Amino acid sequence: MAETKVSPLAPAAFPAMPAVAGVRLATAAAGIRYQGRDDVVLAEVPPGSTLAGVFTRSLCTAAPVDWCRHALAASGGRGRAVIVNSGNANAFTGSAGYRVSEHTAGSVAAALGAQPHEVLVASTGVIAEDLPVERIDAALPGLVAGLEPATSPLWEASAAAIGTTDTFPKAASAPVAGTTAHVAGIAKGSGMIAPDMATMLAFVFTDMAMDAQTAQECLAGSVEKSFNRITVDSDTSTSDTVLLAATGTSGHGADRHATAFRDALDAVMMNLAHQIVRDGEGATKFVAVTVTGAADDAAAEAIARTVADSPLVKTALAASDANWGRIVAAVGKAGQRADRDRLSIWIGDEQCADGGLPRPGYSEQRATEHLQGDSIDLRIDVGVGDGEATVWTCDLTHGYIDINAGYRT
Amino acid sequence: MAETKVSPLAPAAFPAMPAVAGVRLATAAAGIRYQGRDDVVLAEVPPGSTLAGVFTRSLCTAAPVDWCRHALAASGGRGRAVIVNSGNANAFTGSAGYRVSEHTAGSVAAALGAQPHEVLVASTGVIAEDLPVERIDAALPGLVAGLEPATSPLWEASAAAIGTTDTFPKAASAPVAGTTAHVAGIAKGSGMIAPDMATMLAFVFTDMAMDAQTAQECLAGSVEKSFNRITVDSDTSTSDTVLLAATGTSGHGADRHATAFRDALDAVMMNLAHQIVRDGEGATKFVAVTVTGAADDAAAEAIARTVADSPLVKTALAASDANWGRIVAAVGKAGQRADRDRLSIWIGDEQCADGGLPRPGYSEQRATEHLQGDSIDLRIDVGVGDGEATVWTCDLTHGYIDINAGYRT
Repeated sequence: MAETKVSPLAPAAFPAMPAVAGVRLATAAAGIRYQGRDDVVLAEVPPGSTLAGVFTRSLCTAAPVDWCRHALAASGGRGRAVIVNSGNANAFTGSAGYRVSEHTAGSVAAALGAQPHEVLVASTGVIAEDLPVERIDAALPGLVAGLEPATSPLWEASAAAIGTTDTFPKAASAPVAGTTAHVAGIAKGSGMIAPDMATMLAFVFTDMAMDAQTAQECLAGSVEKSFNRITVDSDTSTSDTVLLAATGTSGHGADRHATAFRDALDAVMMNLAHQIVRDGEGATKFVAVTVTGAADDAAAEAIARTVADSPLVKTALAASDANWGRIVAAVGKAGQRADRDRLSIWIGDEQCADGGLPRPGYSEQRATEHLQGDSIDLRIDVGVGDGEATVWTCDLTHGYIDINAGYRT
Repeated sequence: MAETKVSPLAPAAFPAMPAVAGVRLATAAAGIRYQGRDDVVLAEVPPGSTLAGVFTRSLCTAAPVDWCRHALAASGGRGRAVIVNSGNANAFTGSAGYRVSEHTAGSVAAALGAQPHEVLVASTGVIAEDLPVERIDAALPGLVAGLEPATSPLWEASAAAIGTTDTFPKAASAPVAGTTAHVAGIAKGSGMIAPDMATMLAFVFTDMAMDAQTAQECLAGSVEKSFNRITVDSDTSTSDTVLLAATGTSGHGADRHATAFRDALDAVMMNLAHQIVRDGEGATKFVAVTVTGAADDAAAEAIARTVADSPLVKTALAASDANWGRIVAAVGKAGQRADRDRLSIWIGDEQCADGGLPRPGYSEQRATEHLQGDSIDLRIDVGVGDGEATVWTCDLTHGYIDINAGYRT
């Protein structure tokens, strides 16, 4: 972790995390950039485990993303390990950078008796600098020898080791109802998403059994509802990566327990995504923007995202200022159908606008009281249909400027 | 003007402004919201003058925008006057708000012996509050009696009267080559674009003669190259309005002098647009983002806009931090074709990246020296085609947060 103050929106404590049968973890201090802390994590799963991945939509992807896409295609979604380093993103490093990811996968594979394309790689940290791969090579024997079944302290050490500008380690878990299996994951990210150090990474594990197609579909569907519905500053990283590993060790299958598995996966993914917002750079408020009455769900999401990304809305929230005119303006610029004369807006439970006009009896004081809390609900009904969506974000404060205007210097 | 410090990027002095034959101006203090300053401007043009307008793309438009669209359609682009008030935007005021704009136009028309649809109306200021139209009514006789041919001090008084959060009055002019005619305009705006007080308005006048279609086409084309290429914080107002009035009094026609007129119009519009960026809330640097090598010009503009709107890029610029990795990330998220391995980036004259890699010999010090100035040039070649575009913006500083997180309270 960087030596910054813990976010005021952080959970009170690291959660109790379960073992996930078949998952072994190890961390090490390879000294890639940080000194005096772990910066590499190796996660091992048994032969026959299923892997799936969802990656940044950026067209300027980092080398590890390119490697993972290749490896998942080559392996058909089977695999043995994921290795993650912080401190250097191996991004904007050209073909040499790709060879570094390939080499890392190969080294891990050799140590575990696997094929290179059975090993996924993720990196986060500074970009446009060569990743000192020899330091990972040097740490690898210790990592492999140190692999142990995942325990709560080991999950915490792993979550901490992948962090960069994060102010707290992020993990979440859920049991799969009707089975002995679990879903458990760790994540890092605090801007959405700074290309240097604040890339969003998440690694989710389960001991349910499933084929590669099921794993990929479940993961993609869950990302759509969680990580793709959060925004801190509208920026997207070259390295964003979410991976799912399913060991099958519990003996329970995702075919028989499809709904229970998806529910557990969604719960973990949503929890991790919300923790990233709660660690938003400079954030002092966790904000849910819900849009109803849109032409369809996609339109609702587009409007909610425009409101959530509006610097004017976000600065008003920082000031606990019930300036809902800025919400009107954001709805107007979203480019989606909305009926100005049927627009209704709520701040918390207080309805500010009704039918395109200030609501008679609207209490700015009650709205302001809601905004003075650290968990804010905004709701907007745009009056044209049944579409609805929620996007989560945080406020925009001096802290964001401090972090991002002073980061490297 | 609000009592804030003048932007460090403001011009040294208000420019010398020419008379534009046929244009008469008057200002008054109606006390709509501000005390002790003028807040209404009346601009009159002779019978037979041509009017054209370009308005916000927001779907939640303010009443004056609705009125102008109606009036221009009803008059066929002929008209006699524009009346502008600051202090209240008459936005989110429902059908009553529309009747206020209609009433204002009718009052001005009656005083000038014109038809209501020959009078355009613009309002900027707080939203969702009823515009006290009786105060405009009360000021109107004095305004009409005070109309005088536009002089430089009268342009300055008019530019000041329409301002809200602006820290300096904005005006620009250009002669039409080969004629005795001029183009002259005033503008207001300092966020892009706060719905409260920082709506962008521009009013441009010429004594060239032209038909309504020519006026509309020239204005729309010029907006595309100027006001639509600036961004302060990616926000769009419910009230953005650019109007052109052509008196024809010079006797020179835009048909015979088409290129000269368009050049003069473009020069004035570009100058006004840049002044709005220079008054960007909290701005300390004026930034030109040029993208070349895109699939086409529209793709280049989309990429340039994404870079210009990226909070991470804008905060790095505020810190004079040559963190071009953030530019790479912004290019990646723009959703336009770009070849990561042919990407080149310049900060000023210093080339940082070449062919998708840090350029050998790149001097971060030279790039930083350029960023320490207050006029920044970023250039990005994305390596896939011939499209190019420039978007102008400013940096993102603590000043922006101060202004927008503290505005109403």
